[in-house]
Amino acid sequence: MSYRLFIANKNYSSWSMRPWVALKALDIPFEEVLTPFDGAGPQAAFTSFSPTAKVPCLHEGDDVVWDSLAIIEYVAEAHPALWPQSRTARAWARCATAEMHSGFPALRDECSMNCSLRIELGTPSEGLQRDLNRLETLWCEGLKRFGGPWLAGEGFTAVDAFFAPVAVRVQGYDLPLGETALAYAQRLLEHPSVADWISQGIAEPWIDEPHEQDCLRGRRVLADRRA
Amino acid sequence: MSYRLFIANKNYSSWSMRPWVALKALDIPFEEVLTPFDGAGPQAAFTSFSPTAKVPCLHEGDDVVWDSLAIIEYVAEAHPALWPQSRTARAWARCATAEMHSGFPALRDECSMNCSLRIELGTPSEGLQRDLNRLETLWCEGLKRFGGPWLAGEGFTAVDAFFAPVAVRVQGYDLPLGETALAYAQRLLEHPSVADWISQGIAEPWIDEPHEQDCLRGRRVLADRRA
Repeated sequence: MSYRLFIANKNYSSWSMRPWVALKALDIPFEEVLTPFDGAGPQAAFTSFSPTAKVPCLHEGDDVVWDSLAIIEYVAEAHPALWPQSRTARAWARCATAEMHSGFPALRDECSMNCSLRIELGTPSEGLQRDLNRLETLWCEGLKRFGGPWLAGEGFTAVDAFFAPVAVRVQGYDLPLGETALAYAQRLLEHPSVADWISQGIAEPWIDEPHEQDCLRGRRVLADRRA
Repeated sequence: MSYRLFIANKNYSSWSMRPWVALKALDIPFEEVLTPFDGAGPQAAFTSFSPTAKVPCLHEGDDVVWDSLAIIEYVAEAHPALWPQSRTARAWARCATAEMHSGFPALRDECSMNCSLRIELGTPSEGLQRDLNRLETLWCEGLKRFGGPWLAGEGFTAVDAFFAPVAVRVQGYDLPLGETALAYAQRLLEHPSVADWISQGIAEPWIDEPHEQDCLRGRRVLADRRA
């Protein structure tokens, strides 16, 4: 049996990015099936592979795994290196991953991921500043406690993959963070599996207007890496 | 080493309820530490045990596990019965649990949990109706696919615990659901660990006004089970 990972546009789909980057980083083979977004609202084309009509979704035989965090846990049963080896680091990594999965609402809402654009953020909203403060605390705690260079120690694990789309936002919106957090975001951007995703996103032929407008929200584009 | 589970008021704290019910239902011993809410906003008293100042939080030795889903995965390493035994049922249960963890925003926002009150819902908002439709689909799928009486088959597992606060809402707001879903919600309410939590919540001496107002939102109280 083999894994089939259903994703959407690499340029926009931060949730698709997480398991893709995790599996690539750990050299876990899978077949990628990309269905591009089609305008605003529920995506009819996604219902053929996902019970929630959302991405990502993983298939293996008859198993359908329709949530990004559940995909990690499902694959980790066969590939435990997706999580840190030490029980304490694993507990921390699972908490940070779950916090990203359900939290950071302003960061996700106000700074949608776009691999191609540099956007002028302006003054962060109160909610965004709160999310950035928490992000900084969390990243610095992990890096200090487990010694880096990755969040839960020496190896790149699922928790790093879950924050990879945040690194794209840090760059795209020039988010105000301290030196340690910025250096970690840069390390993420330079990781081969993250860099691959980003360059494939920039090379995509599709422009999805609802996603573009959601990134812009009337803000100024400083640069567009698409040709 | 032993588990210490930090929670808040049983009457209000739906997130605290999830791991508490899961551990009780599986007969996993732990020490409960309850700190009641103190008015609106961030809870200063929670910072002494939780890095996010939120509940629930589990301590074991030096390990601090500050997210409800991570608590389940952490404890499940030592107590695998928290998840279904079959790989397929486990994948489904993890997806449904993760979907509850990050989704159902209108249900969580518009129908805050209150173990004591019956509240007149009125016509569900569009968002709430969408969440209820999805809830019904998800519950019916699990019950049909794995044969019941619990969501992922014969045994009560973490996925049932994650939906226990939803059963409290189904009863408290008389949420419009079909027969199969209502019967499952009733089964949850009658499960000993769920029933214990609810009766302990009703017996609490604390009334937290911000939580009460968040439940009411100008709607009419039909009944209050507190003395």
